[in-house]
Amino acid sequence: MYRAPLSDITFVLDELLGPEALAGCRGLEEYSPELAAGVLEEAARFAEGVLEPLNKTGDREGAHWSESGVRTAAGFKGAYRKFVEGGWPQLGADAEYGGQAVPRMLTTAVQEIWASANLAFKLCPMLTHGAAHALSLSGSKAQKALYLPRMVRGEWTGTMVLTEPHAGSDLGLIRTRAVPEGDHYRLFGQKIFITWGEHDYTDNIIHMVLARIEGSPAGTRGISMFIVPKVLVRADGSLGERNDVRCVSIEHKLGIHASPTCVMAFGEGPGATGYLVGEANRGLEYMFIMMNSARLSVGLEGYAVSERALQQALEWARTRVQGRAAGGSAPATIIHHADVKRMLLGMKSSVQAMRAVSLYAACQLDVAAHHTDAARRAAAQARADLLIPIVKGWCTELGIELASTGIQVHGGMGFIEETGAAQMLRDVRITAIYEGTTGIQANDLLGRKIGRDGGAALAALIAEMRAELERLAAAPPAARAARDAALEGVTLLERSANALVAMHSRAPEQAAAVAVPFLMLCGFVLGGWLMARAAATAARRAGGADGEPYRARLASCGVYAAQLLPRALGLERIVSRGGESVAGTPPELI
Amino acid sequence: MYRAPLSDITFVLDELLGPEALAGCRGLEEYSPELAAGVLEEAARFAEGVLEPLNKTGDREGAHWSESGVRTAAGFKGAYRKFVEGGWPQLGADAEYGGQAVPRMLTTAVQEIWASANLAFKLCPMLTHGAAHALSLSGSKAQKALYLPRMVRGEWTGTMVLTEPHAGSDLGLIRTRAVPEGDHYRLFGQKIFITWGEHDYTDNIIHMVLARIEGSPAGTRGISMFIVPKVLVRADGSLGERNDVRCVSIEHKLGIHASPTCVMAFGEGPGATGYLVGEANRGLEYMFIMMNSARLSVGLEGYAVSERALQQALEWARTRVQGRAAGGSAPATIIHHADVKRMLLGMKSSVQAMRAVSLYAACQLDVAAHHTDAARRAAAQARADLLIPIVKGWCTELGIELASTGIQVHGGMGFIEETGAAQMLRDVRITAIYEGTTGIQANDLLGRKIGRDGGAALAALIAEMRAELERLAAAPPAARAARDAALEGVTLLERSANALVAMHSRAPEQAAAVAVPFLMLCGFVLGGWLMARAAATAARRAGGADGEPYRARLASCGVYAAQLLPRALGLERIVSRGGESVAGTPPELI
Repeated sequence: MYRAPLSDITFVLDELLGPEALAGCRGLEEYSPELAAGVLEEAARFAEGVLEPLNKTGDREGAHWSESGVRTAAGFKGAYRKFVEGGWPQLGADAEYGGQAVPRMLTTAVQEIWASANLAFKLCPMLTHGAAHALSLSGSKAQKALYLPRMVRGEWTGTMVLTEPHAGSDLGLIRTRAVPEGDHYRLFGQKIFITWGEHDYTDNIIHMVLARIEGSPAGTRGISMFIVPKVLVRADGSLGERNDVRCVSIEHKLGIHASPTCVMAFGEGPGATGYLVGEANRGLEYMFIMMNSARLSVGLEGYAVSERALQQALEWARTRVQGRAAGGSAPATIIHHADVKRMLLGMKSSVQAMRAVSLYAACQLDVAAHHTDAARRAAAQARADLLIPIVKGWCTELGIELASTGIQVHGGMGFIEETGAAQMLRDVRITAIYEGTTGIQANDLLGRKIGRDGGAALAALIAEMRAELERLAAAPPAARAARDAALEGVTLLERSANALVAMHSRAPEQAAAVAVPFLMLCGFVLGGWLMARAAATAARRAGGADGEPYRARLASCGVYAAQLLPRALGLERIVSRGGESVAGTPPELI
Repeated sequence: MYRAPLSDITFVLDELLGPEALAGCRGLEEYSPELAAGVLEEAARFAEGVLEPLNKTGDREGAHWSESGVRTAAGFKGAYRKFVEGGWPQLGADAEYGGQAVPRMLTTAVQEIWASANLAFKLCPMLTHGAAHALSLSGSKAQKALYLPRMVRGEWTGTMVLTEPHAGSDLGLIRTRAVPEGDHYRLFGQKIFITWGEHDYTDNIIHMVLARIEGSPAGTRGISMFIVPKVLVRADGSLGERNDVRCVSIEHKLGIHASPTCVMAFGEGPGATGYLVGEANRGLEYMFIMMNSARLSVGLEGYAVSERALQQALEWARTRVQGRAAGGSAPATIIHHADVKRMLLGMKSSVQAMRAVSLYAACQLDVAAHHTDAARRAAAQARADLLIPIVKGWCTELGIELASTGIQVHGGMGFIEETGAAQMLRDVRITAIYEGTTGIQANDLLGRKIGRDGGAALAALIAEMRAELERLAAAPPAARAARDAALEGVTLLERSANALVAMHSRAPEQAAAVAVPFLMLCGFVLGGWLMARAAATAARRAGGADGEPYRARLASCGVYAAQLLPRALGLERIVSRGGESVAGTPPELI
């Protein structure tokens, strides 16, 4: 039974980052720890009461396709209605269209709670938010006025329609055609992997579709973005005719069974009516602006599922009696066994580190969007750009590992589906794939986020981490181990980054062959930095009767330093010397 | 479509270990590379033609329980009949009971092929072999004569019946009661997780059951082993009455769906008739003698599934067009992308390393069982005892990771069940749990295999590895990197081992908290040693027209050294310094 980890989340928001992180941000002045606490408590209540009970049943039942559409698993439609009635879709959306402007830092924390309680459910509002975001960035005033208010309120949902059977990571291969007709286009083509592309939640679904206008250049420079509503919307906002777009099947997947993954046919008849968003041939660019934000939201899924896996494993370990505790002869619950403790503490400290890094990245997005000082905005944007592929890649890869560890804690029961631990591994496995695989994230990190500025944004982050960790030499002794380990990690990262920047221009294939290990190194070291900061804070408050949460925090910071951060040693070695073995091997020798 | 990797397997058997590894072994004189090749080719034909086509259908259909028994998935019963007709169960069994004595090294290689082609299928013969092995070690002459010939021929199958709902890793908690009645016992109790405990393959199933004779001491010293046939066997070998043992349900599992995992009720009526094996209260001891061998057989499942995952990922990467190759502008298959190459080469080199270590361990079992020199037998037994928990733990943990990597290579298609990549992750996940979790293996390694002799057997292995690697300084330059990396790994292992032996007596909880990382370190370093040896062999033969397989082997040895072995750096750090953070944290702070 999942319980939202409110004290862990508020520790990061209030004590590790602190509301002062948003100082100077215009439009976020109302944010306060009290406001955040209120929102988080309500989110916890909703997640625990409404979403969590549907997690296992949704997995078992899945979504059902028929000619007339997709029926969601029992209870999901009602839960969505309550979600809308509760005003949750508005949280974090643009106030101009009815949204409630709160920091991304807070919506990221709330989204974690949705994703932990019910990952399949969480995806529909996430995609709606993404579609609305893309429209708000690039749509015309009229388009925004027509679609956004109802998308922001969740009365209509939205999708991102990118992939085709032959065009996944490489969207330049998209073939879906758009034929001009008056003020709109007719679209023809098949799209796959469309998350929540069809369902029974709402009257309408607004698809944001990538397609190629006839005569456009080949490759990525010839792709445009279109609004393709499931049901056409009249100028007065009322629903008109059914559009020529149809879900022709849904996938049979490893996990997230309650989330329909749709094959969508556009233009089986006269062509699907679509409305160009922004300028022709700039669709990919628009999509990528939005995608940065979506990738943060997928990254958090990695630790959200891990948090749930940890809670379930902890519950099992606290009640399952097996063997004797060290030095004792009485039967003991398995939480007393050293290896079980190692697994649980490893999970816990990893989740805490991932959450801290992700909320820090979200905070950078807030500063980038709201700060009154343009230079501060630009610096924060550069940092967010750098962090997001790391959050996406590292948190999801580590999340898969931790969900598997959660199974292991259960022993044989972990392999039995009814236990629920296996579902988490099945669910979380997709997170390292959708919204760009880990390889794609690492390419982005290497090519765009480090290669283009010669590593300047990363060097600035490294310098800041180092300076802060050096100041932490003055922290209480209990925090020293976490600080020393973090500093060693920063040194390893710096060495790797320098090696990689040089390699990227000298031997780009070698650099590409170690881009994922480098991304993982970045993640572990960023986690080490923020865990060291957390340890310093916790050490100051660990004494006395109220100190137990801080003592627990100190313990997990210590475990992170001693059990997780050492991976940086191997990753640094792989980055500095491992590329040639891969790059130098021709494909025919594999 | 799985194809048995015969050239990779014979490279290890013939060139890396070589038939000379069995010199001095009485009873294995007939073994030769030609004999092995013949057996392996036949096994490949059977696996590819009969077992492989049932792998996916068996997963989809699963086994079906009803009051009257368990019906296996379509085709499985026929495949098993052919398996028996082909004489496969006899391979490696005791000649006295109709078996064909071949080295364990060869049966290990053959079992890999079964496990790759169809893991669910492979488990039934494996369990039968295990049950027969336990009986042959500890049964009376009459018991052996009555049961073994038909078990060895596969006409009856066997099971290992250990686990109870409250007694998994801790078998001391077993409650199943055995009440004496004349020359036999009546058993009462419920057992769970009984692999192939019931099925429609054969007329009879011979259960080897752990139970507690009334009045026996509590804990592990009061457990006895019983033969409990599904159908009682008359003295003349004919089948008599149905015994009071019944499969009451089968589990709904993450993977290996075609393998029925049974809840078995003993003694719902008058009590299940059981025959004591060996002496009372020594059941656990008998089981553990057999289990060493079973653990090797489970360990190989880790790389067997990885091999299959690799083959499928390779096929996808060779045909899927996406993006452009580095420096080119034409569309390229994804095998040309650096990160995909990294994943594939990492999988391939890991599989090769795991196979080499496992076959080396199997070879030690052969020497331990067959060598004419008692001292050589004892040394080989000590080494096998040391290696087996490493093979079991390391190969299965790494196998899970690699099956997940196989999904990743497929991108979005990997998450779709029809692709088949996801099944491999679901199937292989159990291997790190059954026959003793990784934590149990690490405990065994630390407590029994290192703690008891103060690390002497491990020190002997380390010295041998070091001496051989030092000799390899004379190997061709192409093999140098693999050798240098392996030597560094041995140094890290030595340092860790010394630290751990000291810690084990000084601070046993700390040692226990790093036992799994230590086990993994052992695995990676052993792999590095044998990959360095392989590189030296391959380097000598890589020139010329026939050299391509050797050049490929050299490349994967290089990748292992540069991309896998560096993990030893982090593991060594965790072992030497990571234990206190876990051991020092009381459970209530988790």
